[in-house]
Amino acid sequence: MTAPSTPPRTAAALIIGNEILSGKTPESNLVVLARTLRGLGILLRRAVVVADDMDQISREIADLSRSHDLVFTSGGVGPTHDDVTTEAVARAFGVDVIMSPELEALIREHYGEHCTEVHLRMALVPRGAELLNCGGSKWPAVVMRNVWLLPGIPEVFRMKIPIIRDCLSGGQPFMSRAVYTRMDEGDLKPLLDGVVKAHPRVEVGSYPKWCDPDCLTMVTFDGRDEDAVAKAVDAFTGLLPKGEPQKIE
Amino acid sequence: MTAPSTPPRTAAALIIGNEILSGKTPESNLVVLARTLRGLGILLRRAVVVADDMDQISREIADLSRSHDLVFTSGGVGPTHDDVTTEAVARAFGVDVIMSPELEALIREHYGEHCTEVHLRMALVPRGAELLNCGGSKWPAVVMRNVWLLPGIPEVFRMKIPIIRDCLSGGQPFMSRAVYTRMDEGDLKPLLDGVVKAHPRVEVGSYPKWCDPDCLTMVTFDGRDEDAVAKAVDAFTGLLPKGEPQKIE
Repeated sequence: MTAPSTPPRTAAALIIGNEILSGKTPESNLVVLARTLRGLGILLRRAVVVADDMDQISREIADLSRSHDLVFTSGGVGPTHDDVTTEAVARAFGVDVIMSPELEALIREHYGEHCTEVHLRMALVPRGAELLNCGGSKWPAVVMRNVWLLPGIPEVFRMKIPIIRDCLSGGQPFMSRAVYTRMDEGDLKPLLDGVVKAHPRVEVGSYPKWCDPDCLTMVTFDGRDEDAVAKAVDAFTGLLPKGEPQKIE
Repeated sequence: MTAPSTPPRTAAALIIGNEILSGKTPESNLVVLARTLRGLGILLRRAVVVADDMDQISREIADLSRSHDLVFTSGGVGPTHDDVTTEAVARAFGVDVIMSPELEALIREHYGEHCTEVHLRMALVPRGAELLNCGGSKWPAVVMRNVWLLPGIPEVFRMKIPIIRDCLSGGQPFMSRAVYTRMDEGDLKPLLDGVVKAHPRVEVGSYPKWCDPDCLTMVTFDGRDEDAVAKAVDAFTGLLPKGEPQKIE
């Protein structure tokens, strides 16, 4: 495989919710988004967690959407007083919020005779937003310019992942390899320093594993150029003493 | 209990590590920190996740330490090439990095005759940093001005929590109550809006529970004034129809 000719698209995540910052709920969407983007060759450079605060969210959206190719928000798109993401995204782009006829029809169909004005609040979108359902999903994702507005409820967040995959495909994925060793970082560092220097296109990470009896350290090799990653792995394992590594993945 | 007379101290978290942004490792320290701070009456207002990048970390530290009373970093304090937090914090405050004699002695004792120069890199601290071990912990926490440098390895991060608890005690803790109901947000919103308006000192959150057969929505009431929280809970439950709520915690 040849080396990627273009730099990867960049992305940021904005996680919205008092429940995360108060510790009421462990955050669980970031890792799902991160893995999805990795497979699409999109570089997630930054994630920010903020409260349900209109001004703060709006400011973050304005900043992140200027400095990244793509932004993904998680949370704050329900119908209650603490759901302010849609309005905040609209403000960030200087537009108002309108009712999407397509979402309104879906919500009316879903709730049937129980549908209320409150449910219909979930049909509000920033003016100019697109509804994407590339993969044929019934419920589309709301995308305003380069900002994807994703729901915070973990089960619903995960339902949007196939849409992201389909709509943003085409990039060269990042590869990741991992070498496990019983050596500790004190002994590994001199070997790693040489490999890091000789393989600048590969991102090398070293992670002590405290609770794994078979392994003291996991060393990872990441990049979009498969050959370069393989060469860095070979260079590193070639430096290890007899009996090492424990395994390579 | 009387209402708190002073506003809460504010805090930010800076989570450092390529492994989080690449999705290799799910982030798991934020919720532990968030719950700890909540119990200390400290308001965690913001969390940021960045890569192992010296400039980015240094810039974030400078920003966050100016705009919050306390900052907690997680990750990047090991001895390898991808551990750049100590140096980045030093740069943010315009100081150099020095070897702490106290940490050096602890590390030499821990590794004994196997101790190397690489292990001793973990004794490096920004010049002027304090070593805090209020709770009598053998391994202290490194604190530079208002920035706590915590390790990223989840097991080691958790070992520092008792030090945070002991050193930062004295604030009035946040209280949190939760009311569980089978009502959906469409029916709840009109009730909630009234409670939110009448109880401005209480933070009210509404969370649909998709996977809990006994409950459609969890409504939470948070604040540092126990009486105010109790009154908001009573006001809300008083509005619910017969047979509700399912439970109160």
